[in-house]
Amino acid sequence: MAKDFPKRKDNYSQWYNDLVIKADLAENSAVRGCMVIKPYGFAIWEKMQSVLDKMFKDTGHVNAYFPLFIPKSFFSREANHVEGFAKECAVVTHYRLKNNPSGEGIVVDDDAKLEEELIIRPTSETVIWDTYKNWIQSYRDLPLLINQWANVVRWEMRTRLFLRTAEFLWQEGHTAHATKDEAIDETMKILDIYADFAEKWMAMPVIKGVKSPNERFAGAVDTYCIEALMQDGKALQAGTSHFLGQNFAKAFEVKFLNKENKQDYVWASSWGVSTRLIGALIMAHSDDSGLVLPPKLAPIQVAVVPIYKKAEQLQTISDKINPVVKALQEKGISVKYDDRDTHKPGWKFSEYEFKGVPLRLAIGPRDLENNTIEVARRDTLEKEIVGIDGIVDHVIRLLDEIQNNLYSKSLSFRKENTFMVDNWEDFKAQIEKGGFILAHWDGTGETEQRIKEETKATIRTIPMDDDKAEGKCVFSGKPSERRVVFAKAY
Amino acid sequence: MAKDFPKRKDNYSQWYNDLVIKADLAENSAVRGCMVIKPYGFAIWEKMQSVLDKMFKDTGHVNAYFPLFIPKSFFSREANHVEGFAKECAVVTHYRLKNNPSGEGIVVDDDAKLEEELIIRPTSETVIWDTYKNWIQSYRDLPLLINQWANVVRWEMRTRLFLRTAEFLWQEGHTAHATKDEAIDETMKILDIYADFAEKWMAMPVIKGVKSPNERFAGAVDTYCIEALMQDGKALQAGTSHFLGQNFAKAFEVKFLNKENKQDYVWASSWGVSTRLIGALIMAHSDDSGLVLPPKLAPIQVAVVPIYKKAEQLQTISDKINPVVKALQEKGISVKYDDRDTHKPGWKFSEYEFKGVPLRLAIGPRDLENNTIEVARRDTLEKEIVGIDGIVDHVIRLLDEIQNNLYSKSLSFRKENTFMVDNWEDFKAQIEKGGFILAHWDGTGETEQRIKEETKATIRTIPMDDDKAEGKCVFSGKPSERRVVFAKAY
Repeated sequence: MAKDFPKRKDNYSQWYNDLVIKADLAENSAVRGCMVIKPYGFAIWEKMQSVLDKMFKDTGHVNAYFPLFIPKSFFSREANHVEGFAKECAVVTHYRLKNNPSGEGIVVDDDAKLEEELIIRPTSETVIWDTYKNWIQSYRDLPLLINQWANVVRWEMRTRLFLRTAEFLWQEGHTAHATKDEAIDETMKILDIYADFAEKWMAMPVIKGVKSPNERFAGAVDTYCIEALMQDGKALQAGTSHFLGQNFAKAFEVKFLNKENKQDYVWASSWGVSTRLIGALIMAHSDDSGLVLPPKLAPIQVAVVPIYKKAEQLQTISDKINPVVKALQEKGISVKYDDRDTHKPGWKFSEYEFKGVPLRLAIGPRDLENNTIEVARRDTLEKEIVGIDGIVDHVIRLLDEIQNNLYSKSLSFRKENTFMVDNWEDFKAQIEKGGFILAHWDGTGETEQRIKEETKATIRTIPMDDDKAEGKCVFSGKPSERRVVFAKAY
Repeated sequence: MAKDFPKRKDNYSQWYNDLVIKADLAENSAVRGCMVIKPYGFAIWEKMQSVLDKMFKDTGHVNAYFPLFIPKSFFSREANHVEGFAKECAVVTHYRLKNNPSGEGIVVDDDAKLEEELIIRPTSETVIWDTYKNWIQSYRDLPLLINQWANVVRWEMRTRLFLRTAEFLWQEGHTAHATKDEAIDETMKILDIYADFAEKWMAMPVIKGVKSPNERFAGAVDTYCIEALMQDGKALQAGTSHFLGQNFAKAFEVKFLNKENKQDYVWASSWGVSTRLIGALIMAHSDDSGLVLPPKLAPIQVAVVPIYKKAEQLQTISDKINPVVKALQEKGISVKYDDRDTHKPGWKFSEYEFKGVPLRLAIGPRDLENNTIEVARRDTLEKEIVGIDGIVDHVIRLLDEIQNNLYSKSLSFRKENTFMVDNWEDFKAQIEKGGFILAHWDGTGETEQRIKEETKATIRTIPMDDDKAEGKCVFSGKPSERRVVFAKAY
């Protein structure tokens, strides 16, 4: 199936793009920058959604839905927010088309111009805080712990499937709290959920940390993030959780009566992950043979291919394998028994390999004689012949093993590609090669900006988990409290 | 909680609107015609989604996602489609805002005008068939059985929460087939799924039938629908399934090589239900005491309220009731144990009654002594004291009974409000009183149109299930093959 599939080392960017398209995950649509998420790609998103949705609900969040449109004036209310988002947004100006009076086709009806333009939401803080104003009077109405699954639009000029598209799908949580501490706790709780999801489900190690002021969400007091390292040595921001302080409450006049019977502005958080995670998932594990998916998020976890010449043989094989398929399904494993007669086994093997199905079983006449089955792992590309009797337990064990192996491999890769750098020449040399660079930074936006201009590297995050240690800024030589993570990024 | 809540007979429309708002289901947003679906309302939608999604998947459908935006020119391709939808759509003309050079706020940046305007999808046939063109070469690529959960926008002038909003949520299925028969079978299969969902889950009886040409979907060969009768005697179209013939395949040049090795246009169906179903659900069962929800779609199926004066009493009650709550949850029942000390039991009783929770249990000190519990049914408003020992089975039985009772009540109501009418005077008199009218129709669009002009009644559907019987058109006196269903409609 995937002819002329490039190797990562030859052209990583082409490899990624070809993989997304040839593995039937997504494609570009007729609308600039907007993608079509194909069924196989969407099935990954559905798995991600269902896991994350449960994590949110288990921590007390509920879902709701807010309008796609945001009145233009709402954006002007929060000064940083408008700077961050107004420059790249789709604007609705009219609400009707009409037949072209001077020819074929249809044209915009100038009589149907909106009094105030509507912006397609790039994110929903403004319209949600305008709504919360009516929902919150007293501390008894708090906290509000609300999430929304939605599409958003940011008019990006350079787009890449999943990683950066004009329209994308995401979830956005918007919470309201009576105290600052509670809002910060919420921000951190979600960051932990995101990190857990990335590591335990996506098998992708991440660094948790806080963004530098330059990289902060427009309107936030602090932006926390999880950052992952891709195989080409570039960083990918996989999720963000913002402590918004009282910024949006002030912009939308959302006050409440606190326990001390005084009026105060409400404290807020917002947080989101998007279909970009699918891009991260693809890049984290896939190889020159195609997609590699962690079992916990693979739409098909096990593919079973019968090898036969005549219809009777297929019948005998099916009789033997159907109970295994059923037993696996009863264990909650997603199995595809592919007995199509339109394709040869070899074609099917390539197909499932390229599409990243974690385990492929094959069973033919000789296996029937020997009571065996062939098991092929996608992660290592190893094959083994095993007895069919214990196959259900064996499959379950292998799926676990693959999940763990993918995580370990990614973690090793990250360790091998994380560098402590202490002088500017080494920094420039290393950033060209890629990887996470742990370096001292003087804490100023100017230095950060100049480093970016010279090397295209940005501060990905100021990590939370490691110990502080003083040093000197790799660029300016000024004192620094701790190392931060630099990288080029998606 | 719901002060001044109107009665249905006094002002049905006000009753509906107040119910939606006071039961925390939805509210109007700052954007004209767009609603905010609040968590309690959205939880109903999530239940609907999960049931329908499983029904679609069990019948071989998969989900995908297509762009929000549709290039304007796509609409001109299918002549009827553009007539049906271009007149009421949100048009994106620009992709950037800028600071107002002559004052405060932000304005549209005229330098960022799109070459071709983009329409926010009112439905996605055009953009999907433009995509299918690249997916279909041969009969081996067929059928495509794809569904999408999405938001759509139709610029309605008069909007009502859930029933008719500018933006709404829905699913839209778009299937492609090698033969006409297969596409028709698919259309009917989905109609059956919709009817099953309405009757078995929403407890709302529906009539299955086909639309008259005047009421057909813009671009369809035939539109099939399910129609329900609301308590005010008006009809509500609850779902539609369209046989599209080869119309969109021709408009977007989607041909395939058939089994006879000849090029042919692809056959199609499309079908959808929307958040309008929540409006139907509300109107089908609710009463002057508030919302009534069928157990199978109620976000909270059982509310448990402890009655206590002191903290020790609450502890004793909790010890007694917690195993019951747990046992119910293990049976998959959604239970809320409401031990909040911020509200009195009486307040909680009103709250759960108004919000349509099917069963409410209450347990106080006297119950502890007697080993009993109070059970209140929302559908009949009956209360009974029962022994606590068999309560889990009793609750399960009652939830079933309530589900069935709501369906029976709705079915009786429909029967009582369905009238065979054979002359024009009776028709006009009856249509004023409401209900489904079964009357003969001569089959012409002119007659249909004149009946609509004189009475506001439309042909809701030409029913599929009942026997044909000839007669004379109630309006024109011309021969008629069968009775059709007339009503005023939402």
